[in-house]
Parts: sequence; C-alpha cells; structure tokens
Amino acid sequence: MSFTAYILDVLTDSVYPARITVADGIFKEIIPIKVTEETKIDVEGLLLPGFIDSHIHIESSMLTPAQFAKIAVRHGTTSVVCDPHEIANVCGIEGIEFMIDNASTVPFNFYFTAPSCVPATSFETAGCVLDSSDIEYLLKKDEVVALGEMMNFPGVLSGDEEVIRKLDLARQYKKPIDGHAPLLSGKELDKYMEQYIVTDHECSNFSEAIEKKQKGMKIMVRDGSSAKNMEALFDFSERIDHLKNQDSFGIIPTEVLERRIHSPIFDFIVSDDKHPNDLIKGHLNKSVQKAADLGIDVIKAIGMVTINPAAHYGLDAGVIVTGAKADYIIIDNLKDFNILKTFIAGECVFDGKNVLFDVPEVEAENSINATKKTSKDFEIYYDGDECEVNVIECFNGELLTQKTTAKLKCCEGKVMSDIYDDILRISVVERYGQNHVANAFIKGFGLKKGAIASSVAHDSHNIIVVGYDTEMMAQAVNKIIDNKGGFAVVSEDFSDSLSLPIAGLMSNEDAYGVAKKLNTLHKMSSALGCKLDSPFMTMAFMALLVIPSLKISDLGLFDGDAFEFIDVIRN
Amino acid sequence: MSFTAYILDVLTDSVYPARITVADGIFKEIIPIKVTEETKIDVEGLLLPGFIDSHIHIESSMLTPAQFAKIAVRHGTTSVVCDPHEIANVCGIEGIEFMIDNASTVPFNFYFTAPSCVPATSFETAGCVLDSSDIEYLLKKDEVVALGEMMNFPGVLSGDEEVIRKLDLARQYKKPIDGHAPLLSGKELDKYMEQYIVTDHECSNFSEAIEKKQKGMKIMVRDGSSAKNMEALFDFSERIDHLKNQDSFGIIPTEVLERRIHSPIFDFIVSDDKHPNDLIKGHLNKSVQKAADLGIDVIKAIGMVTINPAAHYGLDAGVIVTGAKADYIIIDNLKDFNILKTFIAGECVFDGKNVLFDVPEVEAENSINATKKTSKDFEIYYDGDECEVNVIECFNGELLTQKTTAKLKCCEGKVMSDIYDDILRISVVERYGQNHVANAFIKGFGLKKGAIASSVAHDSHNIIVVGYDTEMMAQAVNKIIDNKGGFAVVSEDFSDSLSLPIAGLMSNEDAYGVAKKLNTLHKMSSALGCKLDSPFMTMAFMALLVIPSLKISDLGLFDGDAFEFIDVIRN
Repeated sequence: MSFTAYILDVLTDSVYPARITVADGIFKEIIPIKVTEETKIDVEGLLLPGFIDSHIHIESSMLTPAQFAKIAVRHGTTSVVCDPHEIANVCGIEGIEFMIDNASTVPFNFYFTAPSCVPATSFETAGCVLDSSDIEYLLKKDEVVALGEMMNFPGVLSGDEEVIRKLDLARQYKKPIDGHAPLLSGKELDKYMEQYIVTDHECSNFSEAIEKKQKGMKIMVRDGSSAKNMEALFDFSERIDHLKNQDSFGIIPTEVLERRIHSPIFDFIVSDDKHPNDLIKGHLNKSVQKAADLGIDVIKAIGMVTINPAAHYGLDAGVIVTGAKADYIIIDNLKDFNILKTFIAGECVFDGKNVLFDVPEVEAENSINATKKTSKDFEIYYDGDECEVNVIECFNGELLTQKTTAKLKCCEGKVMSDIYDDILRISVVERYGQNHVANAFIKGFGLKKGAIASSVAHDSHNIIVVGYDTEMMAQAVNKIIDNKGGFAVVSEDFSDSLSLPIAGLMSNEDAYGVAKKLNTLHKMSSALGCKLDSPFMTMAFMALLVIPSLKISDLGLFDGDAFEFIDVIRN
Repeated sequence: MSFTAYILDVLTDSVYPARITVADGIFKEIIPIKVTEETKIDVEGLLLPGFIDSHIHIESSMLTPAQFAKIAVRHGTTSVVCDPHEIANVCGIEGIEFMIDNASTVPFNFYFTAPSCVPATSFETAGCVLDSSDIEYLLKKDEVVALGEMMNFPGVLSGDEEVIRKLDLARQYKKPIDGHAPLLSGKELDKYMEQYIVTDHECSNFSEAIEKKQKGMKIMVRDGSSAKNMEALFDFSERIDHLKNQDSFGIIPTEVLERRIHSPIFDFIVSDDKHPNDLIKGHLNKSVQKAADLGIDVIKAIGMVTINPAAHYGLDAGVIVTGAKADYIIIDNLKDFNILKTFIAGECVFDGKNVLFDVPEVEAENSINATKKTSKDFEIYYDGDECEVNVIECFNGELLTQKTTAKLKCCEGKVMSDIYDDILRISVVERYGQNHVANAFIKGFGLKKGAIASSVAHDSHNIIVVGYDTEMMAQAVNKIIDNKGGFAVVSEDFSDSLSLPIAGLMSNEDAYGVAKKLNTLHKMSSALGCKLDSPFMTMAFMALLVIPSLKISDLGLFDGDAFEFIDVIRN
C-alpha cells in the first residue's frame, strides 16, 4: 500500500508531506515530497502515530482487554502499558495470563507491567499473593515491559526484603520501575528514588510534580475517570509564577521564559483508570485536546502520548519512521481532533464508523467464592439504647475520606442506621472462601432506601455493600454472588444489576453495553436518594486502605492515619 | 559539604535556589529554598551539570587522556564519550587499554566506545585489525558504553558478515551503536538504520539532518577543529523556511511555529576532533555560547551537552539530582559563560585559576617501526622527457580532494616537481615494519622549499610527507622516525619538530606546550610558502581513503570515486 499524506512528525515537531509505503505491517518507506498545485494528497487530514496510554488498569474499564481495544481504537489509541493489578489481586498469575492471552486475540498493542504490590496491604484478604519469584516469572515475559507501580513506599523506605528483591529483579532484567508515591517528598522521596523508581503518576499539585521532576522522575499527568490532574499540573498561573520566580533572579533571559510557558515540563499523559461511561466518549484524544486548551503546545502534548512513552518503555510505537510498526491514525485537524481512521500494523482497525475486528467471548470462571448472606450477617450488636460509633465520611469524587462519629439508636441489641443524618451501613464480604464479613457505618451516600453492592473494591476486590437496611444489603450481595460478580442496586420497588463475571471485575459485553447498564444503575441509585455522581466508584475506594483517613476491609474498620484497625463502637 | 546556590536545572529548564549537600562524591541532598533579603547565597554565579562531549577522538588533541582532562576541566567539561579509533588503528586492543588505564589516573569521566572499523579500509596497511571477537572483548568492559561510529556503511548495506556480527554484538550487550554516514539518504539510509544505528554526527546541511532526524536518528551537531556544522544545522533562515513550508499547509498554529524556531531539533553538540591550539581556547562552553548566539534557547543548548548525552548513553552525569555523581560547574552567567569552577565527584578540579590534579608522565613505546629513508625512496621514475601524472588537489580546511592532472618534466629518468604550478610530491611511508613507500603528486600546499611530515595520517597513521625535493622529504621522515612520531618541518634554513612519542599520535606534554610547538611549526610552514592554515591536519586527511576523490595510502594512489588504486603516471 502506497499513498501520500501530511505526517505530523513528533521527532522534529513538524508537519511534512510524504509518500508512505506500508507493507508487512511496517512503514517500508517514507519519502518526503514537494507539494505543487498538481500534487494529489491521498489522505485528507493529518497522519500521526497512534496514541499510547502508558499507565492504565484495563480492569477499571470493566471490559476485557479485547473489548477495551475495540473502543480505544475509535479514539486513536493503539497501545497501552497496562498494569493488571486488579485481576492479580483476585486471581494472581493466572489472572495476568488471562489478560495477556485475551489481549493477543485482537490487533492492538498491549504491554504489561508486573504488579509489584499484591496484595496491597496485609490488613485485608486478597485472592492472591505475588512474591518475588512470581515477579521474576513475569519479568521474563516479553509482554512485560516494566515493574508495575511500587505503591508500597513504606516498604521501600524501610528496606522490606521482598520489596527490595522485586526492585532488584526489575534492574536485573533491565526493565524500568514505575512509581506511585503520592505527596512523598524531601529525604523520603530521595530514598524512594535511590531504588531507580523513575516515574510517578500520583502528583496532584504543581509543586509536588516540580519536586519530583527536578529530582529526575518522569511525570505522568493523569486525565482519567478517577484522577484528573491536568488542570493542576498544566496550570498556567502556577507555571507563570514559577517562571517569574526564576526571572526575579535575573538569570534566564525574558524571551526564553516567555516561550517556555507553553512547553510541558512533564512527560506523559495517562488515564490510570477509565470507566466505560467515560471511555465511550473519548480517551487520550480528548486529553491532548484538553492540554492544548490549557495552553500546552499541541505537538508537545501529542509527544506525551506517542514518542515519550515509546522511548521510555522501549516500545516499537510512537513514531512514523521507516522500519517501525505501522501504527498510525488520521485526524481531521489539530483543533477539532476527530479521529478519522486508526491503523495497527498497517491494517485499518477503525474506518471512522466501524471497528473492523471481532472480539471473542470469554468463558467466565466463577471467582466469587462466597456463601449466600442473610440480614444477620450485616448487623452490628450493642447492648444498650444508644451508642457512639466511628463513621467513614466520604465525598463526591474523592478517594480520601474523613473520620467522623455519630450517636446511633439501638433496638433489640442491634445498632440502627440513621436515615435523617445519612448514617448508612457499609460492609465488606470476603469473597475468596473465608466468608469474613466486616460491618461499619458510612456518611455521604445519601441513600434513603435499598442498597448498592459491588465486587469491585480496591485492591482486594471483596464484595462491598452500602445500604440502609440489612435485608436489602443481603439481597444486593446475593445478587452479586449469583451474577459471579458485578454491581447491583436493590430496593423494594426496583432492582437491577450489571454482571461482571470475569474475575468479578469485567464484563463480556462491549463498552456501549456496559456503559448503558452502568448509567441505568447510576440513575436507579439517584432514585434511591444517592447523592454521589459515581456511587460504585466511590464505594470501590472505601476499601482502599492505603488512602486515608478511615476505610474498611473484610477484616474490619481501618484507620489509615494510624495504619491500624479500630472498633466501630467507640465506648 | 553544604552550601546554597542557584541551580540551572536541565530537567525542568529552570533555575532555582537550593541548599546542596555533597558527600562521598555524590549529591546527598538538594533542598529548594526560598530567597528573602536575608538569605545568603554562598555560590556566586550559577551551578550546572558538567559538560559531556558525547563524540570525540581524544587522540586528535595530541594529548594523553590525562592531559586532555587537565585542559578540558578548565572549560567545564567533566565527561567525554571517546572513540579510541586512532590508537586502535595503530596498536589495537593494547592501545585502547592504554587509553583506559591512562584515563583512570585523573579525576575525569572517560567513557569509551569500541572502534567498529579498524582498519578503515583494506587498501592500506594499519597496525592492527579489530575483529568481532575483539569487539566483544571490548563491549564487555564497563568503561565501554557503545559501539563506535560505524563508518563502513557500504559494509552495512552489503551485509558484510563481520560488520553485521559487530552490530549484533552491540545489541546483545545492550549498548547503543553510533553511526557515521555522511550524505547517506533514502533507501540506503533506511537500510543502514535497520541495524539500530541510532546516532549520526556527519550531517553537514540542514536537509540531511532533518531527514536523519525524521527517520529516528539522534543528531550530533559538530563544533570541532575539523568539522563545524553548527551554522548549517542551527541556520535560522533554513529553519524558518522549513517552518514556513509547514505553515503553508495551515496545519500548525502560527504561534506554535514562532516559538518552535528557538528550539533545537537536534540532540547533542560534540567536537569529534579538537586540536590542542583550539582546545586551549575552549571546548563545549564555547559551543553552547555559539549556539545561543545563533538563536538557540541557551538552556536547550546546555541540555545538548548534559542531560541529552547522559540519557542516551546511560551515564551517571548530566543532571543535578540527589544521588547522582556530583559533577558540576559554576559559571558567572548565561551570557558571558565563564567557567568559574569545575567539580568532579564533589572535588574541585579547577578553581578558576589552576587545575588541581597532577598528570603522570607516560612511558612511550616506540610504535614507529620503519627504517631510515633516503631521497631515492621518494623518487618516481619515467623514461622520457616529460610525462602526464594524476595529481591530488587539496583545499584549505577541506577533507575532500579533487583529481587533477599535470605535465611534469623528467630528468635522468626521474619525474620532477613543478614549483611554479605548485605540483609537489606526497608520499606515505608504512610504519609497521613492512617499509612500503607510495609516491605521488599533490597540488595546494604551496611549499616553495623544504618538506613537512607527520605520523598522524587518518586512519592507519603511516608517515605522510609533502615536499618539493626528495632529500628534504627523507630528512623530514627520518626526523619523525627519530622522534618516535610527531610532526616535522625541514628546510635548508631551519628545521623543527613536535614529538608525539605515544603511538605516534600523542605527546606527554600539556595542552599549552603542544599548542605552542604546533603554532611554531605552522609559522615555519608558512615561511616555507605553505598556503594552508593547518597543513598537518590537511595532510593527515590526504590518507583518508573513504573521503573522495583522490587520496594516497602506503599501497599507492587511490581513486575514492572508483574505490580502486590508480597509477600516478597516466600514459
């Protein structure tokens, strides 16, 4: 195949017309041409490298890798570096190998990282432990390009033997190490970086990012469903303040400073997590456009999702050069940024209307190994008329919670919810066969009746449920057990569920199907009084113990500041 | 040691004040500080990473590595990636190991490449052959960070077995491959790059550099004694034309284009060759200043001699970050660019006046293994009154020659030089024990009497001599044999020589001593009528067969266009 097109070249930050020959899946020849009035340019629009999301957990899309690919190519994404951290917590190596196998069924570039922190903490029951020998097994695979985000920074700082062994292995196999160190700074950051942990995607403010960058980290700016850090990290006023501060030293010439404002000083744009309802709207294409709207040089922004990640992870991707894999996209222009076509290894996989490959259905393994529950399992008992309890307080769109307290009435020895003060019940049901149930209280959901439950609950993905009364909670949990995982909304008036039978995390359906069902469940939750935009996402993070202040695991209520369990009842 | 200073940070392209602690040779801690009126900044000026010359042949400085270091630190250079190609041609592995050993005697960072093309051609007698097993031996060494410049591009293109084996070995040992492919373009360049040859330092014009860059090469811009490509590659008008050409497509926003002009699109600034008389005046410090004068963003220019080469070759250098080797320099400001101090591994090695380390004297091995010559050795015989000869025509400051002809008188069976038409004799005397002598004629030197000779003659470094009469030529060559190598100027009126007893390439003296002697020889050459600015340099390239059109080796007159020997006498 041979054709003429304008190439957006991220190597020279320029556009040039060329005759391009693609064969055997690669760019065979690229010959710059001179454009005269007679020249026919075959391709309308601009040809650029396919986009690379260099940090994403595919499981958060609730789609199989193959279904993820099917929606991603519509947005110009052709490669992802994905960390199968969620499924690893559920099914270990077997889960990771399922992801690799399933990924290989579609024409899309999936690169993997070896999840470094499974389980995330020892304060919860996960489905699996990945020790250093498992990590070595994974690092040997060609598909595995890095050691996944090292979230256990306390382990790094204290020199935990297994943690250090995993880091050593990554260096031994010459694979880079991804970091995850929210707000780590100063000497502790220095010590963390001594282990050659060279990326970070957790920066939530400009000065945090500048410190990490100045210390030599490559900064991933998140623009996903959970975390959105672009506004903070590409903030114009902060950038100008930072530069003016320099100017006051009188060292850098003013005209150099002025040009500098539009250059991103960070390295990659990533999504981290992308939910199906967001994913049907866009992916990195929208992020690049947003970066440009924020004042970032658009070609540099494109570099952050093409050549920068490709160079860092050593991927055969991200550039339009002879000999490279012919992964490219056609967009209309740099302003509207519509994806007209997507090609992978020279084959058109998205023609502007349809995705041109099929996705095989996956056999679901029942990974939910819990017995059916009754209302009794969710009761909290107290011998008295009233008691004071510790309450998790959550906020719309935030992972952080606060620790608050409430006085609750008791009836027949059971502590009651308080619908007027929005003190609901939250429980975590262990799903790996031990049948622990931990019960506590939560404020912020706003449900007036019914219950919502989910088998997506970071990072161990036990079943989590929030509700007013224990009977509805039992029904919601049992619905999830029946469905082999997923989300459920249950009330006296109506009930519905989204089945996620693959590891309790992913559906067999496509993005549109899953997004539609998810939207239905969101609407039903609202109808039950829920005040949160994404109640299942917020609920999923209520079990993520490493993010303060008060969380819950299947083993109990957990104080993230003190890093220890605490009692629900205070007196 | 702990102090406050303004750091020029090449990671964020910014300047910030910090408290810096240096211990055990590394940056132990770097803490940004707020500057108030009371703040005392200990260091006057600006602290930045020491400069890295990522492509240099130390031998061209005529100094030992240790003596090179002594002059380089005055100019802020703290690291070099050097290709010991010259000494390898003379002494093979032993020569390279001498360089590595000698380098280790001083506090300076010498990184080496394994010379890939020794000998340069099979049309000359070199001191050594480095085959693929030698290359493997070298690639195993920690000091060796890359495979040196692959000049044998015909060998790459034809798939020469030994060449491909060397390239494979570099990939096997995960060491990058440096290129050298002047004017290579189109499909041939594609094929050359298929071998993962990822740098090029031979670009002499903008469009050549753009093509290579667009194909994925990293471009080294030379600013040395022999090659000076900065003006061509940083050319503003070409850059603007290139960008305007883009603008005419209406694809890239104008304001983006305007900012882009000041961004260098190439990667490194290197010297390649730096002669002692240039080296005493400056090194990369002058190149950065020149780049800034040409309109390049000064901080980006600094990046080209710090972080860019460090990242490419994986050097512990080029950045000011905690945990990195404390190689840094203090300059007065970004305009005057005076080097106030140089530090290597935390130790001051240049205090603004003196270099604070000693250089050991080196025992010279006699590598000149040639018998004394007489005038007869340089005669060309012809039976007749007159004959037509092929003549090398050389030009001031150029490596390329032209092939011309001349009619010369004969006397007693010997062909005579023609002083009026500037047709002088040129001979190459084999120095490795076989005592070949090849004689021919050359135009362009302008000598009216006497002879000049040198044991520096790329790439085999046989003895090369130019002169009017054969007696003076014999004396000049014999002077070099007596001196165990070097340069000589001989005439009836005066004679002098510079001894280069180390492999016939390097002196034991310091840069100032060698430069002074070289200047004397240049003046004496001028006094003999020589029209060339650097007659020894020009002469040294008359034996470099790979650069057209007509050259000479110890085996005869060589037509670089036809790539074969030709006769001196035409009829």
